[in-house]
Amino acid sequence: MARVDLNCDMGEGFGRYELPVSSEVMERITSANIACGFHAGDPMVMARAVAQCVEHGVAVGAHPGLPDLLGFGRRKISITAHEARNYLLYQVGALQVFCTSVGVRLQHVKPHGALYNMAAQDEQLASGIIDGLLSLSPRPILVALSGSKFAQLAEEVGLRVCHEAFADRAYNRDGFLVSRGVEGAVIHDPDEIAQRALRMVEEGEVETIDGGTVKLQADTICIHGDNPTATPGVISLVDLLTKHGIEIVPMQEMKL
Amino acid sequence: MARVDLNCDMGEGFGRYELPVSSEVMERITSANIACGFHAGDPMVMARAVAQCVEHGVAVGAHPGLPDLLGFGRRKISITAHEARNYLLYQVGALQVFCTSVGVRLQHVKPHGALYNMAAQDEQLASGIIDGLLSLSPRPILVALSGSKFAQLAEEVGLRVCHEAFADRAYNRDGFLVSRGVEGAVIHDPDEIAQRALRMVEEGEVETIDGGTVKLQADTICIHGDNPTATPGVISLVDLLTKHGIEIVPMQEMKL
Amino acid sequence: MARVDLNCDMGEGFGRYELPVSSEVMERITSANIACGFHAGDPMVMARAVAQCVEHGVAVGAHPGLPDLLGFGRRKISITAHEARNYLLYQVGALQVFCTSVGVRLQHVKPHGALYNMAAQDEQLASGIIDGLLSLSPRPILVALSGSKFAQLAEEVGLRVCHEAFADRAYNRDGFLVSRGVEGAVIHDPDEIAQRALRMVEEGEVETIDGGTVKLQADTICIHGDNPTATPGVISLVDLLTKHGIEIVPMQEMKL
Amino acid sequence: MARVDLNCDMGEGFGRYELPVSSEVMERITSANIACGFHAGDPMVMARAVAQCVEHGVAVGAHPGLPDLLGFGRRKISITAHEARNYLLYQVGALQVFCTSVGVRLQHVKPHGALYNMAAQDEQLASGIIDGLLSLSPRPILVALSGSKFAQLAEEVGLRVCHEAFADRAYNRDGFLVSRGVEGAVIHDPDEIAQRALRMVEEGEVETIDGGTVKLQADTICIHGDNPTATPGVISLVDLLTKHGIEIVPMQEMKL
Repeated sequence: MARVDLNCDMGEGFGRYELPVSSEVMERITSANIACGFHAGDPMVMARAVAQCVEHGVAVGAHPGLPDLLGFGRRKISITAHEARNYLLYQVGALQVFCTSVGVRLQHVKPHGALYNMAAQDEQLASGIIDGLLSLSPRPILVALSGSKFAQLAEEVGLRVCHEAFADRAYNRDGFLVSRGVEGAVIHDPDEIAQRALRMVEEGEVETIDGGTVKLQADTICIHGDNPTATPGVISLVDLLTKHGIEIVPMQEMKL
Repeated sequence: MARVDLNCDMGEGFGRYELPVSSEVMERITSANIACGFHAGDPMVMARAVAQCVEHGVAVGAHPGLPDLLGFGRRKISITAHEARNYLLYQVGALQVFCTSVGVRLQHVKPHGALYNMAAQDEQLASGIIDGLLSLSPRPILVALSGSKFAQLAEEVGLRVCHEAFADRAYNRDGFLVSRGVEGAVIHDPDEIAQRALRMVEEGEVETIDGGTVKLQADTICIHGDNPTATPGVISLVDLLTKHGIEIVPMQEMKL
Repeated sequence: MARVDLNCDMGEGFGRYELPVSSEVMERITSANIACGFHAGDPMVMARAVAQCVEHGVAVGAHPGLPDLLGFGRRKISITAHEARNYLLYQVGALQVFCTSVGVRLQHVKPHGALYNMAAQDEQLASGIIDGLLSLSPRPILVALSGSKFAQLAEEVGLRVCHEAFADRAYNRDGFLVSRGVEGAVIHDPDEIAQRALRMVEEGEVETIDGGTVKLQADTICIHGDNPTATPGVISLVDLLTKHGIEIVPMQEMKL
Repeated sequence: MARVDLNCDMGEGFGRYELPVSSEVMERITSANIACGFHAGDPMVMARAVAQCVEHGVAVGAHPGLPDLLGFGRRKISITAHEARNYLLYQVGALQVFCTSVGVRLQHVKPHGALYNMAAQDEQLASGIIDGLLSLSPRPILVALSGSKFAQLAEEVGLRVCHEAFADRAYNRDGFLVSRGVEGAVIHDPDEIAQRALRMVEEGEVETIDGGTVKLQADTICIHGDNPTATPGVISLVDLLTKHGIEIVPMQEMKL
């Protein structure tokens, strides 16, 4: 039987600000990526986010980003591979202690925003991140873009990798996401999102923006929970997958 | 035989800036308090500081501070006990991962600057910090001002506490340090520093600024390594203590 | 005829976050206090806030705060008077340039949060801020707590001071606000807020939390626009004041 | 008679840290670029730097950088042109107020580090910066890389531009600097630095790293004052230029 994980960003806030994840989304996702203070998040926000995950039985992952609070970690910064390694370790360590303090094990690490995209395209940076992950004990699962060199490199050195697909984002033929700036890059229709997710899981492929098809491995699907309009998409998606007998489980219960 | 630990702040830098600890000091101290990014330190600085400790066989501790890079953590900020707890956990977690990555165990936690002083005087804040330490596993030793309520509260809940004394700082009758702003608050003469340290360790007391005497428990003595003029004081101190048969060992080898 | 200014905080956001002021509030206020990047605000947010003021014909003021993005400038930090001076100048200068770039003159400066409260109670800090204002050219109006030593000191050196009152906050007998933590500190009923504002402007007094009365000078009334529930209070207040023939004008049109 | 300005970065510090400029350098330069808080600098450091300029009769300029304190503004960040404009305005405004407070006029603006390099190569970003400068009143001089499109675009819209050359940096054939990472990119020999500066000013050209020659316009030469080893280079350079009858004057006294 097909299985898939649903992951969602959490802890996206800072001080007085917070972009909350709705309870409808919390009840449906299996894994959460918690911001660790570099692009968003602070110790109070992180502690609350971990507690919220425990409450809803959602597995906890770290969402380390670039040191760019002002740009929400979405802007490329020309950091070195060694900086990427140490920035990741710092953030993962900081989150880990909040997990330990409530008896939860850190399931995974998913780089955020520009760091995620840079790692998918820059082998040196990817190596820095992989180097960081290898020095963690126990080693969390890495969430990386399905089909990316990053995912491949991580698997080659023995890391467990959870391949990620995006049901609400348009794809190029090369398997990369269409940039947000481009017309049609983000898909808003709940039914279309659900259908795309189903095809990703069942057939391992997705239609590209130019009408072609690209293969991918959808171990986990990225869910956006940071705006109210996203909730219907998540509900449709979960309904459709469930109706088709797909089991939604945290990635740590999968063979990766 | 009397034993004492010598601790020194490390990793006091940020980005391009760094306040280095001299190799003469590194060779003599037994414990280092590494800044964790809130008042000083960044992931690169922290990784280097841990490596330097390993190289010199110095035990590693965390030096969490208030979130005040601009004020070097020396300014009081009216945070809550819950914020103190989570700020501490975040920073300790971040440092811990750099320790783990080189196979070192985090020995201790010493709050920095205003956080150290606030905890020594404010029971509620002290409780927040203690609460944070209790949720760590394994539990590091707490370094706190000798004779403070903070130290006492921590011992009452079962934490191992290393009582700290300051050989180059003047004391008030109540056992608190004379504020830096006051004339005579900081002692610069290497011989005087060494003599004070000896009396602290051997007799468990120190002369106060007004000519009296105050009892204290000198499990560890704070060494200042961040300026070249401090080095002679450290050399004198170690020479004198050693001459008097006092063994200088990391606090983790003591019965606390 | 009685006149009063209505001021409201604006530009309370950072990067992706923003606490918007509703158009109902924008249409009713006469002066805006724009965050300048230390407790909230960034160059993009500030530019947008100034543009919004221009669009609604609202006079622009600076809202400098303590360097505490994480605590939204609401936590006391033990800064020196000289630091207060320079922190204020930096922030006012930064905002001023956005005013100049759209041909608007900076009307006033209102310290934010903990800086406002500290200045009202600490003469040395107040002097630092006044020193900063005196070095500005042209000199903006200072908005300070009505009846505070801060307001008095500023007037003594020739600054124009706009005395501020809070219609939705409870007062102590000494003319200071009841701390937010205390039961009854914040008033939520729109009618009560309006009635209090009316009495402040017409009679120059307000009922204290213990049922007494305290005199004050309400040149401007602070309006809270950062949450939807505040809007009805603002509407009621403006309706009632207008009905009673009170003219609502920007403080720069008053004799201060 | 040939004239040239000598500019040097100042105010490169933050909180407890400071990279001081030696008095030997201060006595020889004519213009200073003061960091404005984004890549370095804080209100206290800025106030001190402006005072130091006044003391030495050095003209004051702003040195706005990318919002990257951790990377000292040397890392590229993919910001938009509009962000570049507003980041520049914010920083220039903040510095301007410290100038005004001591009766000094802001002479120039020189983007720092990665922002300088990005503007030299990216026309859109350059336009954002130019847009910001055009909205300042009075308009400061722009310091830009000699021969760059950035300098050209700024001149086309009527800004006064001071073309900059680097006597201690190797050049490529296209007039851009050789990247710091490359062998031979930085020249350390004081005599060679002085000779290169002389040729730049007298002949309007410099030898490239591959033995060719590139034309440039040396209105100002960049001096590095942030390390003790740079001082001899500055002394040699000034001696040689003076011996050859070249007048060293602040850029505001030049026809630009």
